[in-house]
Amino acid sequence: MAAANGPAAAQPPAGPPSEYEPYLSVALAAAKEAGAVIAAAWDAHKTIDTKSGDTDLVTETDKRCEELVLSRISAAFPDHKFIGEEGSAAQGFTEELTDAPTWMCDPVDGTTNFVHRFPFSCVSVGLTIGKQPVVGVVLNPILGETYHAVRGGGAFLNGQPIRASDTRQLSKALVGTELGTRRDAAFLDACFSRIRALSQRTRSLRCTGSCALNLCSVAMGRLDAYYEIGLGGCWDLCAAALVLEEAGGRVLDPAGGPFNLMSRRVLGTNAHLAEAVSGILADCPCAPDEPLPQPLPE
Amino acid sequence: MAAANGPAAAQPPAGPPSEYEPYLSVALAAAKEAGAVIAAAWDAHKTIDTKSGDTDLVTETDKRCEELVLSRISAAFPDHKFIGEEGSAAQGFTEELTDAPTWMCDPVDGTTNFVHRFPFSCVSVGLTIGKQPVVGVVLNPILGETYHAVRGGGAFLNGQPIRASDTRQLSKALVGTELGTRRDAAFLDACFSRIRALSQRTRSLRCTGSCALNLCSVAMGRLDAYYEIGLGGCWDLCAAALVLEEAGGRVLDPAGGPFNLMSRRVLGTNAHLAEAVSGILADCPCAPDEPLPQPLPE
Repeated sequence: MAAANGPAAAQPPAGPPSEYEPYLSVALAAAKEAGAVIAAAWDAHKTIDTKSGDTDLVTETDKRCEELVLSRISAAFPDHKFIGEEGSAAQGFTEELTDAPTWMCDPVDGTTNFVHRFPFSCVSVGLTIGKQPVVGVVLNPILGETYHAVRGGGAFLNGQPIRASDTRQLSKALVGTELGTRRDAAFLDACFSRIRALSQRTRSLRCTGSCALNLCSVAMGRLDAYYEIGLGGCWDLCAAALVLEEAGGRVLDPAGGPFNLMSRRVLGTNAHLAEAVSGILADCPCAPDEPLPQPLPE
Repeated sequence: MAAANGPAAAQPPAGPPSEYEPYLSVALAAAKEAGAVIAAAWDAHKTIDTKSGDTDLVTETDKRCEELVLSRISAAFPDHKFIGEEGSAAQGFTEELTDAPTWMCDPVDGTTNFVHRFPFSCVSVGLTIGKQPVVGVVLNPILGETYHAVRGGGAFLNGQPIRASDTRQLSKALVGTELGTRRDAAFLDACFSRIRALSQRTRSLRCTGSCALNLCSVAMGRLDAYYEIGLGGCWDLCAAALVLEEAGGRVLDPAGGPFNLMSRRVLGTNAHLAEAVSGILADCPCAPDEPLPQPLPE
């Protein structure tokens, strides 16, 4: 953990040289800038967009960080596409994932945490090429943790290589999950059915409120597995899923099939627990209108 | 949060002079020493006492830290009593809480977190006189957070005064709880009945794995409420309950009655949400053999 305690810093990549390095450099720089905005606003009173309800929050800082990250990437790579929550086609935003270089960014993953000063907020910046994540940066400016990966180059926390845990028994596993933002009875039935089934078989449960940081926690070994069904979108997943894969972990559908970045469903585990956890989750019913497993895009 | 990001340090008390200052000084020094032991062992492989099962862990570091804290306190105050998990009568340990000065220490609260390197582990050192907590120190060496309070002197994080949040609507509240260590069906029924009832009415849920740090998180405002039924013991509560009270929060029984330090039940909230949360919890059934509300000791 010593490496994770220093000040937030976008480290130069320690992995092998890669065709993706120019993208990584821009992603790290943009994440570092947005992280500084989050850190500067941390102790201030936050203005919440009241249209968003009480569980799915948007703040001025989300908007500022999103503009900042998009402008940095657009300036460097004007032909690249974006998939995100609020962008327009004029900004290069698209709804459909194609083979073209496409950025998926969450300027503040863990907005509820940001509003409450719960220290699991991050900037997530990911790039897909050929529909596959190839660059990922997840930066938590409060805990001073910068995760990064490029495809084939390993995963790093503050510049040091990381590996997922070696836990092989489910009964010794620490598992993360989240309630998400829905509060209707059908969703809560399904959600607690899964949590209960896993609780009976695992060591304990952690809920930190950030999808990207949960996946990175599996990547660096402080969680052994993490799953969520009905998460916000691919911008929460793209960067951190690559970090976890490059750390030797597994990223798959919670029911055990292949991971689909666009499905709003994810299970991330170390190298050993994917089948044990997905076997339990596959036996739990989903709510009628929850996101279901989907085939990979062609 | 800026104040919480520095290195772990046992700050000199910033509150008014107090008859309890000599106790606070020893508590801070002992917690700082034990915190350094935890931090030094953080990245090492941990040897777990296999007698303890897979959910209630004890490590060599727990034992080393406990000896360290007890020896420092015993040397300074040889006539004081202790209540703890493993001490003997020869060491001054007692089972019954009396009016005599009595220390309640958890050398590693969040042992599962320590084993997994999940960054919510702490040393908790509390003192009761007249059956009331009067001195409390909670030190997280990984996040660099030292909470302290003496009765009547306010609460502090790294030497800076803290206050619980001002959240007044339950729908905007971030609530902490824990699964604890039991995994039988009756307990899980009761546990998830409570979590579900609160989830429907609150913003979201966090599980960090440390009772003392959850209470301190309410004290500094990043959680609005925290409850647990069936927690480890008074050593998890004594110091942090005082920190929360001195931060302007409320500490009570989860069903709404007076807080009993020996009951293995706690609800901590900011100044506004105690009745709203306890009203929901009081309507949820307990498991047959869970700890029930108890009257205060005479």
